[in-house]
Amino acid sequence: MKSALSNLGQRTALPPISWLMQTALTRPKLISLAAGFTDNATLPTTISRKLLSDVLRSPKTGPSALQYGITAGENNLRRLTAEHLRTLDSSSSSRLTMRMKDEHEDDKTHSPDRVMITGGSQQLLYMTLEALCDEGDIILVEDPTYFVFLSILQSRGLRARGVKLQRDGIDLMHLETVLQRLKKSGELRRVKALYLVSYFQNPTGASTSFEKKRKALALLKKFERAAGHPIYLLEDAAYRELRFSGRDIPSTLVAPGAAGRVIYTGTYSKPFAPGARVGFGILPEPLFTAVQRIKGNHDFGTANLLQQLLARVLQTGLYDKHVAKIEKRYGQKARVMKQALAEHFPPSIELWDSDGGLYFWARLPKGISAGMKSKLFQAALKADVLYVPGELCYADDPARRKPDNEMRISYGNASERDIREGIKRLGAVLRKFLPAK
Amino acid sequence: MKSALSNLGQRTALPPISWLMQTALTRPKLISLAAGFTDNATLPTTISRKLLSDVLRSPKTGPSALQYGITAGENNLRRLTAEHLRTLDSSSSSRLTMRMKDEHEDDKTHSPDRVMITGGSQQLLYMTLEALCDEGDIILVEDPTYFVFLSILQSRGLRARGVKLQRDGIDLMHLETVLQRLKKSGELRRVKALYLVSYFQNPTGASTSFEKKRKALALLKKFERAAGHPIYLLEDAAYRELRFSGRDIPSTLVAPGAAGRVIYTGTYSKPFAPGARVGFGILPEPLFTAVQRIKGNHDFGTANLLQQLLARVLQTGLYDKHVAKIEKRYGQKARVMKQALAEHFPPSIELWDSDGGLYFWARLPKGISAGMKSKLFQAALKADVLYVPGELCYADDPARRKPDNEMRISYGNASERDIREGIKRLGAVLRKFLPAK
Repeated sequence: MKSALSNLGQRTALPPISWLMQTALTRPKLISLAAGFTDNATLPTTISRKLLSDVLRSPKTGPSALQYGITAGENNLRRLTAEHLRTLDSSSSSRLTMRMKDEHEDDKTHSPDRVMITGGSQQLLYMTLEALCDEGDIILVEDPTYFVFLSILQSRGLRARGVKLQRDGIDLMHLETVLQRLKKSGELRRVKALYLVSYFQNPTGASTSFEKKRKALALLKKFERAAGHPIYLLEDAAYRELRFSGRDIPSTLVAPGAAGRVIYTGTYSKPFAPGARVGFGILPEPLFTAVQRIKGNHDFGTANLLQQLLARVLQTGLYDKHVAKIEKRYGQKARVMKQALAEHFPPSIELWDSDGGLYFWARLPKGISAGMKSKLFQAALKADVLYVPGELCYADDPARRKPDNEMRISYGNASERDIREGIKRLGAVLRKFLPAK
Repeated sequence: MKSALSNLGQRTALPPISWLMQTALTRPKLISLAAGFTDNATLPTTISRKLLSDVLRSPKTGPSALQYGITAGENNLRRLTAEHLRTLDSSSSSRLTMRMKDEHEDDKTHSPDRVMITGGSQQLLYMTLEALCDEGDIILVEDPTYFVFLSILQSRGLRARGVKLQRDGIDLMHLETVLQRLKKSGELRRVKALYLVSYFQNPTGASTSFEKKRKALALLKKFERAAGHPIYLLEDAAYRELRFSGRDIPSTLVAPGAAGRVIYTGTYSKPFAPGARVGFGILPEPLFTAVQRIKGNHDFGTANLLQQLLARVLQTGLYDKHVAKIEKRYGQKARVMKQALAEHFPPSIELWDSDGGLYFWARLPKGISAGMKSKLFQAALKADVLYVPGELCYADDPARRKPDNEMRISYGNASERDIREGIKRLGAVLRKFLPAK
């Protein structure tokens, strides 16, 4: 007898990262520089305890926090989230020499009515793809990109096309080349969006400059007539607030033409608490309505208790204080890792560091594989240190071979001591595989 | 320019219930007997406050409650959930004259390894359908059934076929007729599951007897060879623990042949707190693995903080105490409504009452419409009382016309005073539309 599973059910693959996580759990001495977990020591247990107690004690908020709510999210949290984004974008965009758009459009893009609250931004990415893509449709992604996003594409039978990534974000010339190529092959009508992890990207740590985002949006617009439908810019800003140096970059929401074309997703998971999973997004119509209906079918709204908690965190100003605290912490850990990398990694390795986020990106000389099945990866495991092989972050794209000479190294969850020891171990392994100079 | 939305995105309709909920919000004097909300006064604000404080204060559970977890759910909560279900099923099934299955199979079906924790049982229903059904596939449903389940089918392009519902659950003869008919038309290969809201069904309040569930499962099995694949029994037990009289009925998990064919979904939302949305399910392979992967793509696991809360609630025994308390409360409210119905509803209306859940079901004489566009519904709204038109709970099934002479009346969220006044108003409206006898 055949399986009764759907095509999606049969197709959905085990994410490669599961295997890494399993491995981490079964080797107690292993130092994992693989997990994108946030720092345990900075998790806001005291704040959360206090604010949850306040929420539940109040007769105004207590029962409603434990009751069903509204599919798109609590109005208070939607308003606070819109304000929060408006503040971020206006303080960063006021530094731009030229206002990119008039106030009217600005207000529209940052309106609470367009804010959707979800179970982490992951859920919003999933539902956005449901609303936007049929099997076989194409999403343009950074090359490399966030691997769980690639898992969604794989599961839903969607195709990804990679756009080269530079230190300051995607390669605009390559974006145009990819779009031209798709136009020629008649596949442009299948292209629905460009997905950018625009701040301290997972996995490379690269941020896309505002200039590039603005131009990318304009470029997509240019190809819409040939596509026959809108092509969206899906900006994933999950790491935006984990910045420890430099200045915030405005989101694409303030670029000209953003109102109808930019989907922005963010989260309170990383800057506050992954265990109180609340994400959010700003969606233009008709996407907002479609995603809202889809969310009605998924869960008719994210748990109110978590939404009330986050609303309090924002309202009391404790959110900003907490973010300032973890920025410091991650900054310190990044410095520790950077120092260890300088000390232990062979100089032939190209390192991408970052002004924020959780990751360093290391590129080995060509021809040396750091992939999941490589001898190097096995040797690292044997030396009890784990990294994420860069190849896992590359989409299946027939236009190029997946590079396998890179690694994502995270300082998110490891202690300073483990960061030093882990990099030392990894450096020793690397030296065995690199030609001595 | 065309819309860029996917077929699913374009197809997903506004759930009719949204309109009802909007209406309820905009008319402050309205008494809503429509919402399936739980009783505000019994929401466990004090317990939740205490236990969340305990969870977050403990260095063992605090940080992990705010960190990422495991996709299938916290192991502790999975274990407690499996035990909880085993206790429910063994205390109810021990009353059956004959043990339905040997201990070995029992242990397997109630194993923590098969438990998945989700954002309410709604999310599990959604992901199960993703894993099981391609567009055009068929799900057999009770006629009438839970309308948000019908919304998922509509959104995903699935077909529903209704099976007649009797006071003690589905009509087995009709189930066989429907299966035979589908076999003849060559569509049996598209049938993936029978969906039963088996306890105090939404909308009718009917519960399916164990005997009927066991026979339904056997009947599905009989048609599998012709279908060419397994046909699952998807048992939605969302209301199981809202019982205020009579005795618990064992779930289909203890029926012979259940291990490979029964999907069981339940929730802590209704018996504990919808705002701390935690649902669960037991899934056989290969469904468990497929749904786990899909959940990885949706949100890689339900918020840990809520899972830790529920684990404490179960572990401390406060869960059972709370359930006992709300059973009493709903029992009292159901009695108040029953009395009001006896006093104010014309005797020509057939009433289904129930041993639990949140609903009464009222059937008007044939030919009198209570549908969304009916004069009766408008007159009720004008009299400031809202019910759910029964027609919303019927699947699109070409085999029959949707009955429109029924109403779902809920005592879940309304106060006793509002229940009395609401039924009085509704009774007065009904008398104007019913022939005097």
